[in-house]
Amino acid sequence: MPNSSTSPTLGVGMVGYAFMGAAHSQGWRTVGRAFDLPLSPVMAAVCGRDQAKVDAAADRLGWSATETDWRALITRDDVQLVDICSPGDSHAEIAIAALEAGKHVLCEKPLANTVAEAEAMVAAAGAARERGQIAMVGFNYRRVPALALARELVARGRIGELRHVRAVYLQDWGADPELKLVWRLRKELAGSGALGDLGAHVVDLAQHLTGELITGVSAYTETFVKERPLPDGSGVGQVTVDDAALFTGRLASGALASFEVSRFATGRKNALRIELNGSDGSLAFDLERLNELEFYDNTQPATEGGFRRILVTEPDHPFLEGWWPPGHGLGYEHTFAHQARDLVHGIAAGTQPAPSFADGLQVQRVLAAIEESAEKNAVHTPVQAAE
Amino acid sequence: MPNSSTSPTLGVGMVGYAFMGAAHSQGWRTVGRAFDLPLSPVMAAVCGRDQAKVDAAADRLGWSATETDWRALITRDDVQLVDICSPGDSHAEIAIAALEAGKHVLCEKPLANTVAEAEAMVAAAGAARERGQIAMVGFNYRRVPALALARELVARGRIGELRHVRAVYLQDWGADPELKLVWRLRKELAGSGALGDLGAHVVDLAQHLTGELITGVSAYTETFVKERPLPDGSGVGQVTVDDAALFTGRLASGALASFEVSRFATGRKNALRIELNGSDGSLAFDLERLNELEFYDNTQPATEGGFRRILVTEPDHPFLEGWWPPGHGLGYEHTFAHQARDLVHGIAAGTQPAPSFADGLQVQRVLAAIEESAEKNAVHTPVQAAE
Amino acid sequence: MPNSSTSPTLGVGMVGYAFMGAAHSQGWRTVGRAFDLPLSPVMAAVCGRDQAKVDAAADRLGWSATETDWRALITRDDVQLVDICSPGDSHAEIAIAALEAGKHVLCEKPLANTVAEAEAMVAAAGAARERGQIAMVGFNYRRVPALALARELVARGRIGELRHVRAVYLQDWGADPELKLVWRLRKELAGSGALGDLGAHVVDLAQHLTGELITGVSAYTETFVKERPLPDGSGVGQVTVDDAALFTGRLASGALASFEVSRFATGRKNALRIELNGSDGSLAFDLERLNELEFYDNTQPATEGGFRRILVTEPDHPFLEGWWPPGHGLGYEHTFAHQARDLVHGIAAGTQPAPSFADGLQVQRVLAAIEESAEKNAVHTPVQAAE
Amino acid sequence: MPNSSTSPTLGVGMVGYAFMGAAHSQGWRTVGRAFDLPLSPVMAAVCGRDQAKVDAAADRLGWSATETDWRALITRDDVQLVDICSPGDSHAEIAIAALEAGKHVLCEKPLANTVAEAEAMVAAAGAARERGQIAMVGFNYRRVPALALARELVARGRIGELRHVRAVYLQDWGADPELKLVWRLRKELAGSGALGDLGAHVVDLAQHLTGELITGVSAYTETFVKERPLPDGSGVGQVTVDDAALFTGRLASGALASFEVSRFATGRKNALRIELNGSDGSLAFDLERLNELEFYDNTQPATEGGFRRILVTEPDHPFLEGWWPPGHGLGYEHTFAHQARDLVHGIAAGTQPAPSFADGLQVQRVLAAIEESAEKNAVHTPVQAAE
Repeated sequence: MPNSSTSPTLGVGMVGYAFMGAAHSQGWRTVGRAFDLPLSPVMAAVCGRDQAKVDAAADRLGWSATETDWRALITRDDVQLVDICSPGDSHAEIAIAALEAGKHVLCEKPLANTVAEAEAMVAAAGAARERGQIAMVGFNYRRVPALALARELVARGRIGELRHVRAVYLQDWGADPELKLVWRLRKELAGSGALGDLGAHVVDLAQHLTGELITGVSAYTETFVKERPLPDGSGVGQVTVDDAALFTGRLASGALASFEVSRFATGRKNALRIELNGSDGSLAFDLERLNELEFYDNTQPATEGGFRRILVTEPDHPFLEGWWPPGHGLGYEHTFAHQARDLVHGIAAGTQPAPSFADGLQVQRVLAAIEESAEKNAVHTPVQAAE
Repeated sequence: MPNSSTSPTLGVGMVGYAFMGAAHSQGWRTVGRAFDLPLSPVMAAVCGRDQAKVDAAADRLGWSATETDWRALITRDDVQLVDICSPGDSHAEIAIAALEAGKHVLCEKPLANTVAEAEAMVAAAGAARERGQIAMVGFNYRRVPALALARELVARGRIGELRHVRAVYLQDWGADPELKLVWRLRKELAGSGALGDLGAHVVDLAQHLTGELITGVSAYTETFVKERPLPDGSGVGQVTVDDAALFTGRLASGALASFEVSRFATGRKNALRIELNGSDGSLAFDLERLNELEFYDNTQPATEGGFRRILVTEPDHPFLEGWWPPGHGLGYEHTFAHQARDLVHGIAAGTQPAPSFADGLQVQRVLAAIEESAEKNAVHTPVQAAE
Repeated sequence: MPNSSTSPTLGVGMVGYAFMGAAHSQGWRTVGRAFDLPLSPVMAAVCGRDQAKVDAAADRLGWSATETDWRALITRDDVQLVDICSPGDSHAEIAIAALEAGKHVLCEKPLANTVAEAEAMVAAAGAARERGQIAMVGFNYRRVPALALARELVARGRIGELRHVRAVYLQDWGADPELKLVWRLRKELAGSGALGDLGAHVVDLAQHLTGELITGVSAYTETFVKERPLPDGSGVGQVTVDDAALFTGRLASGALASFEVSRFATGRKNALRIELNGSDGSLAFDLERLNELEFYDNTQPATEGGFRRILVTEPDHPFLEGWWPPGHGLGYEHTFAHQARDLVHGIAAGTQPAPSFADGLQVQRVLAAIEESAEKNAVHTPVQAAE
Repeated sequence: MPNSSTSPTLGVGMVGYAFMGAAHSQGWRTVGRAFDLPLSPVMAAVCGRDQAKVDAAADRLGWSATETDWRALITRDDVQLVDICSPGDSHAEIAIAALEAGKHVLCEKPLANTVAEAEAMVAAAGAARERGQIAMVGFNYRRVPALALARELVARGRIGELRHVRAVYLQDWGADPELKLVWRLRKELAGSGALGDLGAHVVDLAQHLTGELITGVSAYTETFVKERPLPDGSGVGQVTVDDAALFTGRLASGALASFEVSRFATGRKNALRIELNGSDGSLAFDLERLNELEFYDNTQPATEGGFRRILVTEPDHPFLEGWWPPGHGLGYEHTFAHQARDLVHGIAAGTQPAPSFADGLQVQRVLAAIEESAEKNAVHTPVQAAE
């Protein structure tokens, strides 16, 4: 008899069903098929404002029920975990309410649109933690196997004393002259542009991979195309977010960090590239080749030294126990299954999986310092210290 | 109300639940979530000889019922499509019986272990076709988006007159000196070694991408390590299959083709590489970077010419409508969802999706000619023509 | 009868014979063998302070005579061109004297150690220009064929409106913990560290390739290892120059520019990488693969778009008429022959080859603004405008 | 006083001044400037049939005198070494006469157009060797630093027991439909097509790098375009050489070897690629990126394994002591200086540098076996054993 699994279930309720909702759904759908889990996730209900649309999404993505009000979703008995995939300006309210309703919470990045919101969320998560609830923020790229391996190598001291981090996250959809004034280009809805969307990822990764915090930054931001046609064809409107941001800074150890994010890097589709240089070695990664990690081991003889391309698909690589034989690569969406795996384990064990809401807040503070520096002519601006 | 989908269902019954079974399961699980389908696949039942093991597999992979006899599986009322993922020596018997039982059939590659078996399967598929049934062989790599794009470019004449095909499929697990005498190393069970396992893929792709048949071949095969420890520790046994095969040949147009497959290519994990050179352009692909296709357009000025790395993740690329934004790569397993998509459409429309059993037979004939040439001192050996 | 060449000669006198002197010598030795020239360069004399050492250098590098005082060199009748390869702090004095002595001058980069020196050199070059003399600064990387092609493509509008320049110049010899306190690590001798050595190149290239000036910058500099053993073994001394510099800025058009230079980028040996993103295309280059230019043409259909690797070895590529068939790559040193070619043509025709001393001064002003910003907490610092 | 060098000189007389003559000239011009040599090469005289043309070549390439009859060249008192760069059909006669005249000989590859000629040359070299003369064949690619490093790594056992060699040498100039019937396309002048021109290189490298001989081969050759316009515009003529050749074979150890050479590989300009797979590691090289060697070390943990890109520009890499700092790459022509270096050392020491004429003969025998196999329907054809 199949399906006689006796693991207890974990009902998931998801808010939002656009790009991120689809990606999270794929994670929930597959995580239990790839990994042994202490709890079986059940895709209980999905929430969206428009009944017809949310019904269609549930049917397509495989959710058993729908809600049109997130307040109803977070009180359902069959939901133990609320997965928030709605736009950033809604995160704080939903997450805090869900935590107060006794649910575990997974919240997509960025944690919030402002530091104040993020601080309130951290407070709510802290209170919930004492009641045994788990809150996690969704920086999924931490769980690309190649980046998880990079973190392991750094933690094991393989690159020695850190000198440099350089990271870019480059896309090019902004370079399309026909692009309309979509919501992502309006500050009141999106909070910021490339900075919050792409910059949040590279800030989190730089800190996560190095195990260090960014202590201060200098920044420029720019909006290259200042007017766009309105979506409804009624004329043109102002672009009120950044198209690109450059920022540099220092890490706690004195290492230097350099960042660039842009939606105008023609030909770069999803180029999140990050490189770390240390006294004993270096690591380099490119999301456009996500199954690979480059590693330079400076302890080898100079005549044999070179960046080696590790195909991160071996059974002993992080997360690979659930997938295919060596060389059979994974894709973007697998990161969501990995995130789900670790969250389910955390919930079952009552231990906090990284990244926590506090980690998300810290990223938010870096973003705030970047914006402040950009407004103040690029002057060095300290990042507010975590308490 | 979600899940009110009114599409009729397509019950799938799968035989085998090892590596290929897991990959096919992932395809069936996700295809309806990524693509609009005329029929909704239902993972009805999975079959394996050991009740406990097949129950565990069903639970893990998400099948609703189990069988321990494939004869029972193929007569279930809730199964309209039999998906054969068992070893090659079982393909003919199961496929023919399933077709005779009125089921559609998807059969993993290679179609069979011998030409005679494959011929019988083609005959059965032909008879079933007249009854409206569909039979398809699972050369999943045809549906890597980059290779599907390659086929489109060739079909549109973008590389002009074909001159060369060169393909390798290199792995290295055989180089492990500890490797035991597993079933894949015994001819009576596996049919052949690298040739059938890896060679079948490159032969199929070479013919599929070029739209031409291989007319004759010259070949060497080799077994580098001739004895291995028996799995039960009772001593050593003979390796009776090839570890590697080199073969060269001619295509119908007079183009030259060169192939190499090996399990001893240290450091190459899953390096299926194929390059086509034509009078007007060239194409190159490497499965270890499966989201990329390299294209050289010889009609551009020489000063601007160069192999361009196309990231095959744009919405208008083959199969990409179901997935993520540009630059968010896919993995190995997506090919099984794509195969399922096209098979479901074929079944619904009553049209034959490629590759057919006849295509599978033709590959088998090429493999037979390779084995014959290898036995006859590499002499040029014609491939038996399709009727 | 060979060697009956009737081209008039151009006597060259070189100051310095270390790394740069050897590279320039190779340029003078080969330029007339690879290219048709209106004047035949003659390696007349080389100058160094130590008679024995300069004699040995002349013998090894192929110079016909030696001098131990540059004042004697610049007044030799058989010298029409003075080629300055001595350290930066000597450039101004020698160049100005040579120009006043009626000689043409080629001066290695950076033009000088200070803006004031560079301004005096520009004045001297201006006066000399009216007497028909030519002065050129040696930014040799402009004449890597791939970068010359990049400049042509930009000039022909192939990348459209510029959005981004990002450049790094990364080396790793500073990461050697055994490294002694060599002269390059002392400010009084070297002027600056990575900034002047590596930064000058990327600043010049960014401006040259784009055809735009940098208008302002924000910068950090860092010295990671602050003490080093003295070369004579008598203890340790202070490192007084930067090991690395990060700087960002704006170009005249509003494009953003990002730079990083370091001697601590473990594993990066000579990684001068520069990328330009424009509305119609992008270009990317890496000095570690100097025969290649990557070009993304945004005017092609999205399904066929991709960075193409142009092997810049075709007969119609810049400078290639003098060398080998397609695909037979050039090396680092060829840039010096190319520089010599264009300088000889300029002298023969009485026209100014780029880069002029004024171009060198402009780079110096950018470096000065970088140093000023780094001292002022990274605040945006305008670059002094050229008159 | 410069140029007081007291090393004795070595007068070089070169036959032929086309592509190879220009490349050899660059080697002779620079070798003494880059390396310490026991003998100073002097570019004494160059020989060609047309007085005006050879005079112009001497002037351009830097030779002190000219001859129009090679018989005069080989008897000049100022010539101790005859460097043969004329077409293959002249090699045997000139080399044998020069050896009999008491000169050392450097002969471009292929050693000869036939095995019989090559055998006679080996006999002449043997007799001359007893008189203290040196004869060397010019397989310059052995002295690409990356390939010299590859040979060192194999010799030190770093790849263990050899399993596979695969090599291609791909160019695309034949794909030009406008190409005239040049001498290289006529068997009576060129001996063979891609096989002798490109195949000789890969055969030599495969044997040199592995330290093993090829014992037997199977081959196909093809002429894709069978008629070309005559150069004088008087009509069309037959192409009588191969455009491409595929050959596979076995090495002495039982390893498998696979080769492909073509002038119709559109987009591949000078792609000599060679890969070796052994039980303990693998090596890969591409002449289009000649400063790089890829090395996979199978003795490292699987989780850290990967092909590493060694930039072969370190001071301790082969031949690099004469050139530039790390990361400052070399070009195609440097191989000729390296070849000259080793030849001069051999002459001074009275020791035979590799490759000898016997090595050249052995390559010729492999090419002959390839031609024989291609004529006999690809049947396995043993290579005649060296005595």
